[in-house]
Amino acid sequence: MTSPASATPAYRRLSVEERRAQLLAAALGLFAHRPPEEVSLDDVAEAAGVSRPLVYRYFAGGKQQLYEAALRSAAEELEGCFAEPADGPPTDRVARVLDRYLRFVDQHDTGFTALMRGGSVAETSRTTAIVDGVRRAAAEQILRHLGVTRPGPRLGMMVRTWIAAVEAASLIWIDEGKRPGADELRDWLVEHLVGLLGVTAAGDEETARAVARLLQQEQRGGRIGSLAGRLGPVVGGAAHLL
Amino acid sequence: MTSPASATPAYRRLSVEERRAQLLAAALGLFAHRPPEEVSLDDVAEAAGVSRPLVYRYFAGGKQQLYEAALRSAAEELEGCFAEPADGPPTDRVARVLDRYLRFVDQHDTGFTALMRGGSVAETSRTTAIVDGVRRAAAEQILRHLGVTRPGPRLGMMVRTWIAAVEAASLIWIDEGKRPGADELRDWLVEHLVGLLGVTAAGDEETARAVARLLQQEQRGGRIGSLAGRLGPVVGGAAHLL
Repeated sequence: MTSPASATPAYRRLSVEERRAQLLAAALGLFAHRPPEEVSLDDVAEAAGVSRPLVYRYFAGGKQQLYEAALRSAAEELEGCFAEPADGPPTDRVARVLDRYLRFVDQHDTGFTALMRGGSVAETSRTTAIVDGVRRAAAEQILRHLGVTRPGPRLGMMVRTWIAAVEAASLIWIDEGKRPGADELRDWLVEHLVGLLGVTAAGDEETARAVARLLQQEQRGGRIGSLAGRLGPVVGGAAHLL
Repeated sequence: MTSPASATPAYRRLSVEERRAQLLAAALGLFAHRPPEEVSLDDVAEAAGVSRPLVYRYFAGGKQQLYEAALRSAAEELEGCFAEPADGPPTDRVARVLDRYLRFVDQHDTGFTALMRGGSVAETSRTTAIVDGVRRAAAEQILRHLGVTRPGPRLGMMVRTWIAAVEAASLIWIDEGKRPGADELRDWLVEHLVGLLGVTAAGDEETARAVARLLQQEQRGGRIGSLAGRLGPVVGGAAHLL
């Protein structure tokens, strides 16, 4: 399938919005696999097959403005990954969201690393705010599947902490040459959430109620049953502590 | 107790090292509670009771050099917090490390937030490297208490992910007016580690062996026994899934 921009015959002038989208797509492709300091407006013009002055006409603020616009577009794409119908076992829903998220991370590896690592010349309070918006959207979606809209402090902190852990694990995953495979990482991240829900429920009533609701929607022999089976021997080693 | 610098009579000249330490201490005090962009060299000179040219003489690179030197000094202090003898139940050792860490976070709240949030004007690849060094030191200490020096990929990722979660929880904690109290947060972070060790051990033999060793060093009625007791009812809700 060709993109609308490249399918447009050369003799038709692109509309302002089409041109903007074309430049953004070219920029996003470059920022995905290179740190922002290694992408020039010349590169973007070349990738889009247009002149440098034209790039400047659309992004008068230069590379920083283009970077922030590309980041905003990537943030929207990422937030789109989080949308998941509230059907079926919640752990399977989280697994599907993580599949899409890890595919995004895989496709934007260098750019994702440069953005999240910090210390990039392109980082500003605005880029930080965009990334924080994505984190908030992710937290809201997870809470939705837990059946909670306004979480208390413990449950709210738990969800936000897990999201930070997912981010950190993604960066480590890229660093380590994407080993283990995305499926194994996804399963571990789901079980990480289940473990965290468990220990938080052990000390917080709101989380305990959310976990009870979640367990009612899970299936026999599903993800939680499998984890519980494998946890048996581990927990057995703690019998002398009770 | 007065600091060595302020106890020095005015007529004695400070040595180069003493003067440097005095300026760094003054800078660290200011950077702890204000974002770096709100601290000027004038402020540092005033806090140290010296002239601005003298601050420049010691830190010719200006505020950025002073900020990085203060950060390096804070990083050393923080790494000092992680040192904990390998005696007694490992979960109690982790709790003591977290006590010292949370006290540090409490004492450097605004500076810690500005540094970790990213997007600060003072952030460079050098400041990022200093913070990464602290994370590495923290991971090594945790692994030491787990009796592991060269962890495999799953255990290594688990420990680094938990450290990221502790960082994220600290930032949320500062944001939320340091509620819940530091003791409650510490206990939850220890249980977070235990939960994460449990689910990771359920899928990774190296982690399972580390957990088995850890459980042998815990005490009846200690942190893990208490958690297991409170987890009982939560886990009971999953009986239909096995």
